[in-house]
Amino acid sequence: MRYVAGVDLGGTKTAAAVVGADGSVLVQGQIATKNRDGGTAILDATAVLVRSLRDRAAEQGATVDAVGVGSAGVINAVEGTVLSATDAILDWTGTHITAGLSERLGLPSAVVNDVHAHALGEAWLGAGAGTSTSLMVAFGTGVGGSFVVNGQPLLGHHFAGGHVGHFASPYAVHRGRPLPCSCGHAGHVEAIASGPAIRAAYVREGGSAGLADTRAVFEAARLGDELALLVISRAAAAAGQAVGGLVNILDPEVVVISGGLADAGSFWWNGMERALRAELLAPLADVPVARAALGNTAAVVGAASLVLS
Amino acid sequence: MRYVAGVDLGGTKTAAAVVGADGSVLVQGQIATKNRDGGTAILDATAVLVRSLRDRAAEQGATVDAVGVGSAGVINAVEGTVLSATDAILDWTGTHITAGLSERLGLPSAVVNDVHAHALGEAWLGAGAGTSTSLMVAFGTGVGGSFVVNGQPLLGHHFAGGHVGHFASPYAVHRGRPLPCSCGHAGHVEAIASGPAIRAAYVREGGSAGLADTRAVFEAARLGDELALLVISRAAAAAGQAVGGLVNILDPEVVVISGGLADAGSFWWNGMERALRAELLAPLADVPVARAALGNTAAVVGAASLVLS
Repeated sequence: MRYVAGVDLGGTKTAAAVVGADGSVLVQGQIATKNRDGGTAILDATAVLVRSLRDRAAEQGATVDAVGVGSAGVINAVEGTVLSATDAILDWTGTHITAGLSERLGLPSAVVNDVHAHALGEAWLGAGAGTSTSLMVAFGTGVGGSFVVNGQPLLGHHFAGGHVGHFASPYAVHRGRPLPCSCGHAGHVEAIASGPAIRAAYVREGGSAGLADTRAVFEAARLGDELALLVISRAAAAAGQAVGGLVNILDPEVVVISGGLADAGSFWWNGMERALRAELLAPLADVPVARAALGNTAAVVGAASLVLS
Repeated sequence: MRYVAGVDLGGTKTAAAVVGADGSVLVQGQIATKNRDGGTAILDATAVLVRSLRDRAAEQGATVDAVGVGSAGVINAVEGTVLSATDAILDWTGTHITAGLSERLGLPSAVVNDVHAHALGEAWLGAGAGTSTSLMVAFGTGVGGSFVVNGQPLLGHHFAGGHVGHFASPYAVHRGRPLPCSCGHAGHVEAIASGPAIRAAYVREGGSAGLADTRAVFEAARLGDELALLVISRAAAAAGQAVGGLVNILDPEVVVISGGLADAGSFWWNGMERALRAELLAPLADVPVARAALGNTAAVVGAASLVLS
C-alpha cells in the first residue's frame, strides 16, 4: 500500500500523520506552529515533523512517497504558494510551501487551504464518505466552507472559493444597521453566525461582558439565561438559513456541518437544521445534513488525499 | 468541420440552429412550443424543426451528426428526462427527451436545463468566452443561474443546481415580514429582484396598478416617477448584493449578467454593479461583470456544445 504524509498547518499548531492509501493513519504527531518566526522557520519545523513521522513509518515498513498540506491562508494550489494570510502567522504570505517542503524532504508535495483540506477529508472518509458532491460549512471562529465535487474542492479563479461566510444575511443587522464583518464589509453571515459573533451579540444587547467567550454564552444558556438563548438561537437560524440557501444553489449530495458550533450541543444544532430545511426547494427537501465526523483528523487526511489521487 | 443541431426548448417557443464546431450558426429556425399538448407532441414538432434545419444544412454540404437540447424544467441530464416542470408546459414532466429525439431523428442527443444551456453558450462564445469558470445569473421573470467550470455546468445531485434566486435577501421584506417567493418559501432574492417582483413592489407600496408590467415601471422611472425609481434601485441593489455574495462563495473568473433586467438600461445596471462590488472580498475586487452578449442565441449554441465536446 502507498503511504503519504498529510499536514494540517494552522495558526497555532501543525498536525501531521502518515496516511495509507486506504485512509488508515499509521503514525501522527503535532507541534506548535512557529507563527511569529516567518515562512522559512515554519517550513523548517514542518519538515522536521514530517521527517520524524517518516522515520517512525519506516520502522513499520512503510515508505512515505509524497506530502500533502492543508495550510491557513489563501493558497495558490497550482504554484504551491501563500497568496495572503492574516497576522495569525507572521510573514506567511509569499511562502513557497511546496517548493520549500520538496527541497527539504526530497518528496513531491501539494497544498490547498486548510478549510478545503478539512472538507476533502470529510468527503473521503468522514460524513461525506461515498458521495460524489459534498458541501462542508464550518461555524467556528469564522464561517468558511468548501464544495467538493468528485474529490476536488472548487478552489476558484483567485483560489478564494469557499468564503461562504461572506454573503448577506437578513439576521446580520442591529438597530437597522448591518453588522460589521471581519472582511471589512458588513451584514454578512459571519457577522452574526460565527462563535465570536454570538458573544458579541450577547454583550451588545446588554448581557454581562464578564462572559469571556462563546463557550461562556453557551454555558449561560444551559443555565437558562434568556438573552444567551436568544442570541444563540438567532445565530443558529442565521447559520441554517445561509446553508439552506447554499444547498439551493449548489445541490450537494450531502451537507457536512463542522466547527466548534456544530459540536456545541443540540440547541444550536436543532435551530440550525430547522432554519436550513425551511429554505429548501422541494426537490432538495431530503438532503442529508450531517455533523463532521473526523474532528481534527479531517484536514490531515484530506491533505494526504491531495497526493494520493 | 462537424455540425450539430442545438435546440432551445422554452415554455412559449422552441428555437433551433445548426451549429458548427467553431460556433458558427449555419441555419436557424423557430416554432411555437406545443405547450398545451404534452411531451409526445412537443417532441414530434421539435423533430420536424430539426429535420428541416438538417435538410437546409445538407443543401450547404453540412451533415448534422448529433442534437443538443436546452429545455425548460428540471432536467436529469444523465437519463435525458424531465424531472419536473411548471404548468407553462403541460405534461412535460416525465418526458424522455433524448430517447424521444434520438428515435425520431436517428441521431445521438443530450439535454440540460435551458438556463445551463444559456450559460454554456455565454461561456463558450459570449461574455464568458476564453474563461475557465463563469457564473451566469439571469434576472428576468425569475432569477436563475449556472456556474460553468471548464465547459461543464454544475448540475447538482438532483439536477437542481443553479437555483440562485432562492437564498435569503435582506431586501426581501415588507413591513418586517419576508416577502413570499415563487418556491413556496419567503424572503428569497427572487421575491425582490425578479422583473415581476419590481412591478409587485411598485403596486404594494402605493403605485398605480395601472402599470401593467415590469416594462411599464421602468418607463415610469424614466419619466421621473420616484416610487418607480425607488423600487427599481432596491431590486438592483438586492440583485447585486446577491451576485456579490455568490462571487465570494464561488470565485468565478467572470460574472455574466443576463435576462430582461440586464438589458433594461444603466439605472438598474449601475445600481446592481455598485451593490455587487460592495460585497466583494479584497482578492476578488476586480472580477469582471459583463452583460450577456449572445441574446437568444446563447441557449441554442450552448445546447449544441453539449454534443460537440
